[in-house]
Amino acid sequence: MTEYMSAREGRITPAIQAVALEEEVEPEALVESIAKGESVILGNKMREQLPPLGVGRILRVKVNANIGTSGDRADVEFELEKLQAAEDAGADTVMDLSTGGDVPAIRKRIIASTSLPVGSVPIYEAAVASARERGSVLEMTPDDMIGAVQRHIEDGVDFVTVHAGVTRRAVDALEGNGRICDIVSRGGTILAEWMAYHDEENPLHERFDEILETAYEYEATISLGDGLRPGALSDAGDPGQIEELIMLGRLAERCHEAGVQVIIEGPGHVPIDEIQAQVQLEKTICHNAPFYVLGPLVTDIAAGYDHITAAIGGALAAMHGADFLCYVTPSEHLSLPTVQEVRDGVIASRIAAHAADIARRRDRFIEADNRVAELRAARDWEGMIRECLDPKRAAEVRALVPSDDDSVCSMCGELCVFKQRAKRKSGGGG
Amino acid sequence: MTEYMSAREGRITPAIQAVALEEEVEPEALVESIAKGESVILGNKMREQLPPLGVGRILRVKVNANIGTSGDRADVEFELEKLQAAEDAGADTVMDLSTGGDVPAIRKRIIASTSLPVGSVPIYEAAVASARERGSVLEMTPDDMIGAVQRHIEDGVDFVTVHAGVTRRAVDALEGNGRICDIVSRGGTILAEWMAYHDEENPLHERFDEILETAYEYEATISLGDGLRPGALSDAGDPGQIEELIMLGRLAERCHEAGVQVIIEGPGHVPIDEIQAQVQLEKTICHNAPFYVLGPLVTDIAAGYDHITAAIGGALAAMHGADFLCYVTPSEHLSLPTVQEVRDGVIASRIAAHAADIARRRDRFIEADNRVAELRAARDWEGMIRECLDPKRAAEVRALVPSDDDSVCSMCGELCVFKQRAKRKSGGGG
Repeated sequence: MTEYMSAREGRITPAIQAVALEEEVEPEALVESIAKGESVILGNKMREQLPPLGVGRILRVKVNANIGTSGDRADVEFELEKLQAAEDAGADTVMDLSTGGDVPAIRKRIIASTSLPVGSVPIYEAAVASARERGSVLEMTPDDMIGAVQRHIEDGVDFVTVHAGVTRRAVDALEGNGRICDIVSRGGTILAEWMAYHDEENPLHERFDEILETAYEYEATISLGDGLRPGALSDAGDPGQIEELIMLGRLAERCHEAGVQVIIEGPGHVPIDEIQAQVQLEKTICHNAPFYVLGPLVTDIAAGYDHITAAIGGALAAMHGADFLCYVTPSEHLSLPTVQEVRDGVIASRIAAHAADIARRRDRFIEADNRVAELRAARDWEGMIRECLDPKRAAEVRALVPSDDDSVCSMCGELCVFKQRAKRKSGGGG
Repeated sequence: MTEYMSAREGRITPAIQAVALEEEVEPEALVESIAKGESVILGNKMREQLPPLGVGRILRVKVNANIGTSGDRADVEFELEKLQAAEDAGADTVMDLSTGGDVPAIRKRIIASTSLPVGSVPIYEAAVASARERGSVLEMTPDDMIGAVQRHIEDGVDFVTVHAGVTRRAVDALEGNGRICDIVSRGGTILAEWMAYHDEENPLHERFDEILETAYEYEATISLGDGLRPGALSDAGDPGQIEELIMLGRLAERCHEAGVQVIIEGPGHVPIDEIQAQVQLEKTICHNAPFYVLGPLVTDIAAGYDHITAAIGGALAAMHGADFLCYVTPSEHLSLPTVQEVRDGVIASRIAAHAADIARRRDRFIEADNRVAELRAARDWEGMIRECLDPKRAAEVRALVPSDDDSVCSMCGELCVFKQRAKRKSGGGG
C-alpha cells in the first residue's frame, strides 16, 4: 500500500511520522491533511534513501530550484555545480529541466547526486528527441509523450509536471483575450502547437489514466502544469488561464480517485493586488491541493532582478496560501543561470517563504527572527551572522567597510543604539 | 505666500502644475490633495533650481536613498559617488545621514551636487558635536538640537526628520512590552537617553513651534521621525510604537495649522501579515499624511539581503497606501554601504514602488510593463533590455551564458515559445 493510501486510512506511516516531527505538527493533523489532499509527501519509491519531504497547508513553505542543461550549454558538471549551490543555499527540492545533451543520462546523474526530491518536465525530453530525430517537436507521437512521463517516473523522479490541462477548450478560451505574450510555458506551447498541427486533443489529457497508473505504482506526485499561465502582468487571470485552472481542479480529483498525490502549478506574472485572488481561486477550485507558484513576478520591467520581483510575489502568494515556491533567478528572461544566479534565486525565495511562514504559523517560525534580533541587540556579531540565512554573505558584507571598533559596525559606530544603551546601563553615562 | 498656503487657497502654482503634468494627474486634484495634507511638494525655497517633487496619495510612489559618512569612513568623495549611484539608479530623493567628518560641510556639498530633494536628520549633527566638544551626546543642550534643525533648513534641506513624537509618555509606554531590541532609531535612542539623563521632556517636542516657524519660512517639509519604531519583527505594533504614532498624528495637525507640510515616518521591522494594518493605522491617525516607510523588513534573519526583505515589505506597504519608500541596502545591520549596495538598494526599492504603483493606478503604470512584454514577445532583445529598469544589468545577465542564436536566449534556445510560435505563423511548421 502506498503512503498516500495509508494516510487515507488514517495510518501514521514512518514517513508521516518523520515529516510531522521535522515540521512540529501533530502526526494526526498531517495524516488528515494528506488524506484530504491538502498536503503531500514527496518521494518516489525508487528513492528509498530520500528523506521524506512534505508540502502543504499546515507545513513550512517549500522552495524549489530549477536547474538543467539547454542546447546552448549542455554540460552536466555545470548542472551538478548548480545542484550543489541550490542545496547549499537551502533549496528544498530541485527540478531538472534539461533540454540539451543526453537528457536521460543527465537526469539520472542529478537524481543520483542529491538527497533532495527531484522534479522534471518529461515533455521537454520527448520534444527535444522528436526535434533531433524527426526534425520538429511537432512530430512527437502520443506514445512519445506518455512514454517520457513514465520513464521519468521509473527513473525515480519524485514529482513530474504534466500539462494535462492544456486542452483544446482551454486553448480556445485564450482567443480574443488580446494576450501580449500568448502562451509562455514551453510545455503549454508545444502542446498547443501540437494540437493545432495534428487537429487532435492533448495526449497527456486523453491518456491521463495511463500516467496515473505509473504514478501510483511508483508513488510519484503529479504536478499539474499550468501551460496557459500568464507571461505578462496584463495577461493574468484571463479566461484562458482560468479555464485551464478549472480543468486542473477536475484532474486533481482524478488523481485523488486514483490514489495519486497531486500539486497544482500556478503563475507566473501577476499584478501584486491580484495575487491573493489567484491563490484563493486555486484553493477553491482545486480543493486546497498544494499550490506551487512560479514567482509570481509583480512587474515585467525588472529583467536582471527577477529573483526580487519573484520574492515579492512569492511572499504574498505564500502568505495567502501558496505552499511551494519555485524560485526565479536573476537570469530569468535573459539567460541560462550560472551558479551565482542559482544561489541568489534560492536565497530570495527562502526569504519570501520564511516571511510567509511567519504569517502562517507565527509561534514556530518567528523564533529564528527573535534569536537573530536578540544577538543583534547584544552586539554578538559572530552569533548574529551565524544565525542568518546566509552567514557567508553576511560576513562578507560586514567586512565591506570595517569599523575600528569590533563591538559595533561602520554604519553607526559610537552612535550604535545598542552600545549607547549598554553604556548607560553599565553606568557609563554615554 | 508659500506653495502650501497657495494650494490651500486652491491656487495652482507653477510647481503644482509641473508635478501634475509629470505625474499625469489633474492639477485640481493635486491642489486638493495638497490642501488636505495628503500630498506634499518637496522643495526648500533656498533651492530655486530644484525640480519640484510630489509625494502622496495620488502620486507615484517615491524612493529615497540614504547616504552619508560615519565615524569609520568620513570621506565626502565616497559619499558623492554614492549620491551619483543613487541618482543613476533612479532614486527620487536622498537623505544625508552623515555622522563623521565635517558634517555641515558634507551636507552643503551634497546639496550643491544634486538636483534631487535632500533630507537630513539634524539631531545626528548636534549629538556628534556634543560628543566631540563635551565628551557625551547627552550633554547636548535644547538650543543645540533646535539650532541644528534650523541650520539644516537654512542650508536648503528639503525635508528634515524631527523626532518630536519621542515624548516621555511614549517612551514610558515601551515599559513592560518586553521588546527584544528596545529603541533602534538613533534619534529616538539619543532623545530617550537624554530625557532620562536630564529628567526633562524632549526639546524637539517642547519647542516644536520654533521648528515650525523656520520650516514655514523656508518651505521645508517636516518628516516626523518614528523614534520608537520596531527593530525586530516581534517588537512591531506595541504600545510604545502606537503611543508615538498617536502623537505624530497630533503633531501633523500642528504642522498643518502652522502652514507647514508634513510626512510621517514608519517602520521598520514588521511581520508581513501586519503591514496592511500598520499602514491603515497611520492613514487613520495621521489624517492620510504621506507615509514614509523604512522597509518594512519582513524577516530579521536575512542580513546581507535586506534590500530584498525591504522590497517585499515596501511593495506591500505601498500597495496598501505607503507613499514613500526609504530604501534599505544589503549592508543594513552590517556595514556602511558602498556604491554597489546603494545601487542594489535603489533598484530593489524601485521594483517595490513600481509593483505598488501598478496596484494603485493600473492604467498609468502598467504601460511600462506592457511595453517590455511586447518587446519580449517580439524577441527584440535590445529593445526589451533598453526598456527595463536597469538595462546595463540586464545586458550583463544576458551575456552570462550567450546563445549561439541571437534571436533567442540560452535558457530555451530552439524551444523559445516566441520563436516556436513565430515559426508556425510564418508557415515553418516548427
